Amino acid sequence: MPTRKATATWEGGLKGGKGTFKGESGAINGQFNFSSRFESGAGSNPEELLAAAEAACFSMALSAGLEKNGTPPTKVETTAACTVQAVPGGFGITTMKLNVQATVQDRQEQVRPDRSGDKGGLSRVEGAQGERGYST
Amino acid sequence: MPTRKATATWEGGLKGGKGTFKGESGAINGQFNFSSRFESGAGSNPEELLAAAEAACFSMALSAGLEKNGTPPTKVETTAACTVQAVPGGFGITTMKLNVQATVQDRQEQVRPDRSGDKGGLSRVEGAQGERGYST
Repeated sequence: MPTRKATATWEGGLKGGKGTFKGESGAINGQFNFSSRFESGAGSNPEELLAAAEAACFSMALSAGLEKNGTPPTKVETTAACTVQAVPGGFGITTMKLNVQATVQDRQEQVRPDRSGDKGGLSRVEGAQGERGYST
Repeated sequence: MPTRKATATWEGGLKGGKGTFKGESGAINGQFNFSSRFESGAGSNPEELLAAAEAACFSMALSAGLEKNGTPPTKVETTAACTVQAVPGGFGITTMKLNVQATVQDRQEQVRPDRSGDKGGLSRVEGAQGERGYST
């Protein structure tokens, strides 16, 4: 199985210094600093990167699980919210909340082939998409 | 303390589908797919994002720790290597290896004020940077 690398550099002091990061794929890179992490300055931060990792993994995994279950989704969208807080000894990630919306073919609304001649009612919803919410 | 968000969407099946992610700061976004995660296709993947988060956090935290210790670094560079493997019940992050290089004012090589008249030898290394490696 793969090992993926990323490199990050910090130059200068905690409050006045600056950070940069880049992934080995070339697909991600950016900068971060004290303000972008703990205040409202421009730039990314480790928590946002962690949230992106979690959201990406969860959307892919839920899609795979629904597909395996015979209820493949057309779309899964996950928003992850990652909180960093002061904890004894320093700082820690204390919560990661996920909000997930999955668009899944709603089999309860599908029209069976033997009813396909019915042009009204249920036949119109053949292929309709149901929106379901999942929260963890 | 701040909460940072990122959103990721997966569309389609596991092997033929495609994913996108974006951070709320606007500083990161990209795409991922089965091949960029488990093979060698173009794009990012959750493991690379997780490695970037870890490397960014560690470089910043080590800099802060060295600064607090009275040995401020001019530069800390961390490369994180994140491995995903099959585990019972699915996949898991099994290792995160960090390789860290910190450039720190080497106090052992500094010239004390009472020896500053010495223009040869030790005086030349006043302000010299020592490179130290840390591995966790």
